[in-house]
Amino acid sequence: MDDQSALDRIKAPELERVLGHTWRVLDDGFVRVVDYLGSDQAIVQAARVSYGAGTKAVHEDTGLIRYLMRHRHTTPFEMCEIKLHVRVPMDTWRQWIRHRTASTNEYSTRYSIAIDQAARTDPGAWRLQSSRNRQGSAGVLPAEVGGRFTEREAELQALARNVYEERLAAGIAREQARKDLPLSTYTEAYWKIDLYNLLHFLGLRMDEHAQAEIRAYATVIGNEIVRRWCPIAWQAFKDYHLNSLTLSALEIQVIRRLSGGDRDGARRLAEEFGWLATRDGKLRRNRERAEAWRKLRDLGIDPPWPE
Amino acid sequence: MDDQSALDRIKAPELERVLGHTWRVLDDGFVRVVDYLGSDQAIVQAARVSYGAGTKAVHEDTGLIRYLMRHRHTTPFEMCEIKLHVRVPMDTWRQWIRHRTASTNEYSTRYSIAIDQAARTDPGAWRLQSSRNRQGSAGVLPAEVGGRFTEREAELQALARNVYEERLAAGIAREQARKDLPLSTYTEAYWKIDLYNLLHFLGLRMDEHAQAEIRAYATVIGNEIVRRWCPIAWQAFKDYHLNSLTLSALEIQVIRRLSGGDRDGARRLAEEFGWLATRDGKLRRNRERAEAWRKLRDLGIDPPWPE
Amino acid sequence: MDDQSALDRIKAPELERVLGHTWRVLDDGFVRVVDYLGSDQAIVQAARVSYGAGTKAVHEDTGLIRYLMRHRHTTPFEMCEIKLHVRVPMDTWRQWIRHRTASTNEYSTRYSIAIDQAARTDPGAWRLQSSRNRQGSAGVLPAEVGGRFTEREAELQALARNVYEERLAAGIAREQARKDLPLSTYTEAYWKIDLYNLLHFLGLRMDEHAQAEIRAYATVIGNEIVRRWCPIAWQAFKDYHLNSLTLSALEIQVIRRLSGGDRDGARRLAEEFGWLATRDGKLRRNRERAEAWRKLRDLGIDPPWPE
Amino acid sequence: MDDQSALDRIKAPELERVLGHTWRVLDDGFVRVVDYLGSDQAIVQAARVSYGAGTKAVHEDTGLIRYLMRHRHTTPFEMCEIKLHVRVPMDTWRQWIRHRTASTNEYSTRYSIAIDQAARTDPGAWRLQSSRNRQGSAGVLPAEVGGRFTEREAELQALARNVYEERLAAGIAREQARKDLPLSTYTEAYWKIDLYNLLHFLGLRMDEHAQAEIRAYATVIGNEIVRRWCPIAWQAFKDYHLNSLTLSALEIQVIRRLSGGDRDGARRLAEEFGWLATRDGKLRRNRERAEAWRKLRDLGIDPPWPE
Repeated sequence: MDDQSALDRIKAPELERVLGHTWRVLDDGFVRVVDYLGSDQAIVQAARVSYGAGTKAVHEDTGLIRYLMRHRHTTPFEMCEIKLHVRVPMDTWRQWIRHRTASTNEYSTRYSIAIDQAARTDPGAWRLQSSRNRQGSAGVLPAEVGGRFTEREAELQALARNVYEERLAAGIAREQARKDLPLSTYTEAYWKIDLYNLLHFLGLRMDEHAQAEIRAYATVIGNEIVRRWCPIAWQAFKDYHLNSLTLSALEIQVIRRLSGGDRDGARRLAEEFGWLATRDGKLRRNRERAEAWRKLRDLGIDPPWPE
Repeated sequence: MDDQSALDRIKAPELERVLGHTWRVLDDGFVRVVDYLGSDQAIVQAARVSYGAGTKAVHEDTGLIRYLMRHRHTTPFEMCEIKLHVRVPMDTWRQWIRHRTASTNEYSTRYSIAIDQAARTDPGAWRLQSSRNRQGSAGVLPAEVGGRFTEREAELQALARNVYEERLAAGIAREQARKDLPLSTYTEAYWKIDLYNLLHFLGLRMDEHAQAEIRAYATVIGNEIVRRWCPIAWQAFKDYHLNSLTLSALEIQVIRRLSGGDRDGARRLAEEFGWLATRDGKLRRNRERAEAWRKLRDLGIDPPWPE
Repeated sequence: MDDQSALDRIKAPELERVLGHTWRVLDDGFVRVVDYLGSDQAIVQAARVSYGAGTKAVHEDTGLIRYLMRHRHTTPFEMCEIKLHVRVPMDTWRQWIRHRTASTNEYSTRYSIAIDQAARTDPGAWRLQSSRNRQGSAGVLPAEVGGRFTEREAELQALARNVYEERLAAGIAREQARKDLPLSTYTEAYWKIDLYNLLHFLGLRMDEHAQAEIRAYATVIGNEIVRRWCPIAWQAFKDYHLNSLTLSALEIQVIRRLSGGDRDGARRLAEEFGWLATRDGKLRRNRERAEAWRKLRDLGIDPPWPE
Repeated sequence: MDDQSALDRIKAPELERVLGHTWRVLDDGFVRVVDYLGSDQAIVQAARVSYGAGTKAVHEDTGLIRYLMRHRHTTPFEMCEIKLHVRVPMDTWRQWIRHRTASTNEYSTRYSIAIDQAARTDPGAWRLQSSRNRQGSAGVLPAEVGGRFTEREAELQALARNVYEERLAAGIAREQARKDLPLSTYTEAYWKIDLYNLLHFLGLRMDEHAQAEIRAYATVIGNEIVRRWCPIAWQAFKDYHLNSLTLSALEIQVIRRLSGGDRDGARRLAEEFGWLATRDGKLRRNRERAEAWRKLRDLGIDPPWPE
């Protein structure tokens, strides 16, 4: 199933060119590629162990990788591995580290002095709480108002650092001195993950619902790094996951009615689903209805109910 | 291998009595048991699927659990699961969450206002940096000196909270407002883990090298909770892991010489291992020698070299 | 965020009624529930730790669970755990065990004599190789032809068992005696998994592309067990995953054109995607085109190209 | 903490020389290295992110790796990854695949015809069941007796292959035709794992209690592959894990008494532990006593009780 002769390591030429390169993220963070294993070719190599030999033309490989991605045959994507060196505010790192399928070595503030840098916010970058989405943000404070918060941020960060350094100067243990560092303090880590799990991470963290800060990192990792590392898998991921659209069993039924010209029937379905409940004669807010509305519009279909 | 009739859930009577009970940890943290699955009996039940039927006397069950623990047959211990509700400073949680084999739901400061409580330090509780161990602490500051640091801590925490609340009052998004909260801010989480992985966690976090804060939590979980939940497994864990002592291949050789009365030979071995290198006629510090020295003393054996 | 008083374990009343019940699968396999932790209520409980307190009406809980499922907030579903006792042919178990996120104790044929039962095939149950799908089957052999294969199967299984027992009788070690047992030999295991990972398993193994044997197990686990255990989550899973339909970025574009009445434009897109390549004037087989064709038909949309 | 300039991939020169080389195992199995990431140097690199910069002399690196291994600082060892191509009887693979922390692509007998090779046993290689250890083997059948079992094995394997091929010839689906293949049938897989988890696997599978077949694979992977890949980590693993000896809390107490010359006291402890129970005036078999006896002898200490 494979000839048994000497092998060379698989190389990803586009990625080789940027090994060690520093992509800046936020005001003082970064992402760098330290090392990697495999590339698009390794996905194909692994799949062929499973599915048997086949032609090796580039065209065929592309088709195979796209097929695997489309049908969620995930194990061949685990055959690629990448190791990044990142610098991230602890607040963002708290979200990042929730992904349990990676290996991590983080800079230790028990062993070493904490990095003397905290993420700062420009006057025009203070985001407003979204009124529709409990976890989101929408718009920004005017810069002239934001300026005050930027100053307060600097004041707080300076006090925090002073207190930290006073403690160290008094001989207080590093592990305890750090206890009141702000979450904005930068940390660094080596982070190693396989391609399948990295794409899962990117699917969640490049999403519009992800917090802006981690999205900034995810976007660099996806668009700058994975794109160079495994260009075929990356394109397939975008086509079949990142930019795909999933219709629920309920939405499928609605679209079927609409396709058949039965606009009233589609609306009756929505009523049965409880999407059109009213209060005081007005449509109540309903999340699922709003999501369905947006999907239909995305597909160029006119929804039979108001947004 | 098991009769196919109706079953009742396995109960852990001692644990049932304390379900929901709050064990206080640190100044404002806690640990509670929310739910669980299995007990000592479930370990035996699972092992008997593997090893075939046998007598069911309590004595036999104890012997079986101890055998499994001693020989690192780990899978039966995965058959017990526990769910805790914990309240922990974020700084401690950062260490806690590094254990990837648990399920976690943490209080979200994107959705909700951050808990208005940060871990405080008493004047007499400021620990000094260990001079021998880069990551440890040793002794404390005199309380009259510590008082100043306790005041500065309060000042910093108050400013941090004020800044946080100013941001919220101005409509800044919760996800961004939280960015400068101190690491000492309390968070809460549901944390669910199987017994095997919990014991691994406790082995590391009840260890004397673990940081005092997480050790306080681990000690409660072990001594108060696991002891009630799976008393036989807990005792076996203490006997065969927590209070065990591992001798390296090098130390085994040394002890063999000493047992045979060959004190010079033992010393020559230590020399060969590089443990007795000198500088300016004085023994250099050597970590492995010091560790071996302590283990020999623990065993009541007189080491053939100075500490 | 939760009152700190005494707690009772969460119960799933419908599941309690069938604890230990044996569901027969294949000719001699089964599935039983041994124990469990949590239920729909535990999903809500965990989510409320993250998202803060809220009303507790049943209606609200249903909406919350469905929201979590729709938006792939997966961690609350990890807060439920179930332990099954299964009896499965080793061939099927080889697929089952590929899911790495479960805890397993399998009957050991090193310790014990192998189960004296192998999966048999009825004369009318020999499936034919699919000509379109390398991994699938389609239709069956006529029973009068199948009868011969059922006899040969019996002959082979009898010889295998005889050889096994001859070895044991001669004192050959169990671990070696078993080496030529047929893959059809039944094994048993305790299998413990959380709800999130179980649903992932069911999504793959209830799928029409899954092999019939493991599909039979998955269908029982889903329709009989999860339905009783977490009925709200189960319905949400069916609506938002099992019976959902995912449109790729390419298919979205095609549907947009069709919705706008631009049938030619839709066809031109398909050409650009390489879906309509011909050989000798005839459309070549193209997997992605065929998949898109089926999805459009599912939505009641007439595809602008032949199947 | 690291200079931010261009990087080269870390190389393991000794391993590079044998990439793709086939190590034969059993009668028709093999192990090959397909690709890898990192080496001893990567362990050091990751540790230095955690512990801060330091000198980079080879001597220092060795000390650091040995320190990490001794103190179970495991995450730096996860920073190395290796990908193997293996050919293994399915019976052995069933044990192998129980290690869940690896990525696997196995040859699929749903897609492809099963490999036409089953593991055979030489007349002198039939092992006898151990009378002391339910899962072990001890000694072999005389070759003149074993010859008969080798013949029967060939007969069974031939019938199994014939039946398989008859099914395929009749158009029966590959996924069903394979159902009675013997467990001795060879399979192939790509298997990718990090160094930490690989060492864990080797610690269990190079152990004398592991079954001979998987031990043969583990020994090749350890002694031929890891030794070349990460020679410093490999030596440390042997010194601190593979060839170490763990004393239980009970054994520690016994040795302390013996070191203090209190042979009677040591014996009394053993009695208290229940190690010296008798039946009909004779010492009953006791596993823990036997294990303690062997450990003491290993340390050159004369146990105060009979084996």
